Amino acid sequence: MTVSPTLDAVVAAHAALRAKHPLVQALTNSVSVNFVANVLLSAGAAPAMVDNPEEAALFAGIADAVLINLGTPTAAQVESMRLAAAAAQKAGKPWVLDPIAAGALPWRGAVAAELLQFKPAIVRGNASEIIGLAGLGGGGRGVDSSADPAAAVPAAVDLLAHAAAVSASGPVDHAVGRVAGAVVLVKIGGGDVLLTRVTATGCALGALAAAYASVAPDPLTGLVAAHVHFAVAAEIAASKARGPGSFAVAFVDALDAVDEAALRERAKIEPAVPVG
Amino acid sequence: MTVSPTLDAVVAAHAALRAKHPLVQALTNSVSVNFVANVLLSAGAAPAMVDNPEEAALFAGIADAVLINLGTPTAAQVESMRLAAAAAQKAGKPWVLDPIAAGALPWRGAVAAELLQFKPAIVRGNASEIIGLAGLGGGGRGVDSSADPAAAVPAAVDLLAHAAAVSASGPVDHAVGRVAGAVVLVKIGGGDVLLTRVTATGCALGALAAAYASVAPDPLTGLVAAHVHFAVAAEIAASKARGPGSFAVAFVDALDAVDEAALRERAKIEPAVPVG
Amino acid sequence: MTVSPTLDAVVAAHAALRAKHPLVQALTNSVSVNFVANVLLSAGAAPAMVDNPEEAALFAGIADAVLINLGTPTAAQVESMRLAAAAAQKAGKPWVLDPIAAGALPWRGAVAAELLQFKPAIVRGNASEIIGLAGLGGGGRGVDSSADPAAAVPAAVDLLAHAAAVSASGPVDHAVGRVAGAVVLVKIGGGDVLLTRVTATGCALGALAAAYASVAPDPLTGLVAAHVHFAVAAEIAASKARGPGSFAVAFVDALDAVDEAALRERAKIEPAVPVG
Repeated sequence: MTVSPTLDAVVAAHAALRAKHPLVQALTNSVSVNFVANVLLSAGAAPAMVDNPEEAALFAGIADAVLINLGTPTAAQVESMRLAAAAAQKAGKPWVLDPIAAGALPWRGAVAAELLQFKPAIVRGNASEIIGLAGLGGGGRGVDSSADPAAAVPAAVDLLAHAAAVSASGPVDHAVGRVAGAVVLVKIGGGDVLLTRVTATGCALGALAAAYASVAPDPLTGLVAAHVHFAVAAEIAASKARGPGSFAVAFVDALDAVDEAALRERAKIEPAVPVG
Repeated sequence: MTVSPTLDAVVAAHAALRAKHPLVQALTNSVSVNFVANVLLSAGAAPAMVDNPEEAALFAGIADAVLINLGTPTAAQVESMRLAAAAAQKAGKPWVLDPIAAGALPWRGAVAAELLQFKPAIVRGNASEIIGLAGLGGGGRGVDSSADPAAAVPAAVDLLAHAAAVSASGPVDHAVGRVAGAVVLVKIGGGDVLLTRVTATGCALGALAAAYASVAPDPLTGLVAAHVHFAVAAEIAASKARGPGSFAVAFVDALDAVDEAALRERAKIEPAVPVG
Repeated sequence: MTVSPTLDAVVAAHAALRAKHPLVQALTNSVSVNFVANVLLSAGAAPAMVDNPEEAALFAGIADAVLINLGTPTAAQVESMRLAAAAAQKAGKPWVLDPIAAGALPWRGAVAAELLQFKPAIVRGNASEIIGLAGLGGGGRGVDSSADPAAAVPAAVDLLAHAAAVSASGPVDHAVGRVAGAVVLVKIGGGDVLLTRVTATGCALGALAAAYASVAPDPLTGLVAAHVHFAVAAEIAASKARGPGSFAVAFVDALDAVDEAALRERAKIEPAVPVG
């Protein structure tokens, strides 16, 4: 049963991440692959980017969690994604779907819809992507270009038919999941607008959510912990940055520096409220 | 009709870039893909690296401009390049060809020659690459290993048979195009030698040229504006760098920081002169 | 005949690197490709990531050395690796094999075993990878998860059946090769634990070893020189870093800054001792 993702639960998940250094298999886009690996390493996890069809399923059995990100899919990588998602599901490993542009580009939209059958623990995207992905299911609300995560909450709730937890990133992140059988919404504030000026930050958040999902008591807590760790690090980094380049560097430093004290001082989590 | 690419025209193009945040589809090499995305974001554009054959043509219709860079072509990416270039031409979107090593490696040389048929708005390379690409056409001057952009001007003029504007990067960048029907040469100084110690800076300049081409009144003005924005940012970054690593970071910061005042203070554009 | 890799020999190799700027063809994983290129540029070499089957063999004849890294192999890249390794062997160019996870994943293990037939100048990995690769040969000691490079020395010696020099990276790097017909071990200390918190540092070391192998009098001296250059740069960088992000930037700066004085002041090379 999912517990309410409180600050104490986030702190506990962070301690577990640092104790266990979970191995995250990332099948991700070409833009993000180096940054995703460095974010995982700095935050306290271990990355492995095994994404060929020959090894993807085998490695999903070795890894603690899997990230599948649709940013720049190739035909071979899509085949790997199917294999890794199926293997993760079979092995009971949590996996995260980051459905970049799935609602806007039909080919990858079909891939995303197919991947949902393998029951991701978490779906993470921006508001448009969550709305677009939900719209692919037939029962959703269609594509919307809105960038407001609040507008994506109904779509995120729809996606709980496939995933245990779903979030839309934005100025205030919105995450939904079930606590004691009830659908709840958790809002996470903080962060910094510079996150939008560096490529692949969202992708890296998805990877961190995979890492947390493997050490947290449930996917929603893991997802909220990843958002909080990210937002706190971004705030620290923004205070040291002169622009997008130095922000990216300071952000990687800050992911490492975030400890329990920083989480307790800076985390902005609103109490879970029922939705749907 | 192309206007003479004066400093005022560059300033206006820069303002348009910041106002419109053009979406640039980049089909680029594996070394550059993250840096290209971050350079575009910092400079004021929006990147999307859609480069699979299933989506490349569709996305070229969505994007404002397309970059095609031959640095590390795969067979699938080459097919995507054909599709994207054809789609961009059909849709009237400007696209940029960066013909890395096209004159030295026959396989990609044939690809580059084929891509020229789709009429890029801009060709950008270093001197050897411009000379090498022109040599592929049969009427050119063959491969030359010279690194002096001045030596590439005749080849650049040859390439105006295919592209509206062509530049060779170097200590002083040389760009050619037509103004009022006459072929002209514009030289852009500044920059810093540290640009040659960081990988993918040339690739990123090609991407920025695509962004500018979509907001400037003509490709030559867009190309010159990209060179100037790049050179001014490099000068600012060099003053803060301790080596190639910190230069790359400061350069991304500086691309964001460059404003009209910085352009007017630091731009080194020589007046256009007739050539050919 | 291999000379004993003393500090003087390392200093001479470093001077040769800076004088000759060797061109290194890197067929490497997607995570590392940008970092590898920037490490090579900063250290004093020139990178080229030509890794498609159409051009890989041709380019191996142009390059001064080749790196083959098995981090994220695709089917096409594996074909390129075979072609490049064969071409390098035929042309007498040194090439380096970095057998990431070859002992743990059978598909790439078979690739690694096949590539050994083309006689790499150098094999470089962490201790587990060296042990795992040696185990693939049938006469080796099997897979061992130990991270202690000392434990990998017997496996490294086994691999001298295929390569002229072999090293296992760790807190103290262990390199083996032959000097005057005798198998010797050279230990290189220094470095910094932050190297383990940044992705692709090992990959970049392999690339630097390829660069040094092309300018040093023998592969063992080149390999030791690469380890020393790396370790000295890491020490300098660690003194300026606030975390893994700023360490990576300072490390690239330091690779450029390392000169003869820094090598003589900071290098930690133990005299070669007989082993095997």
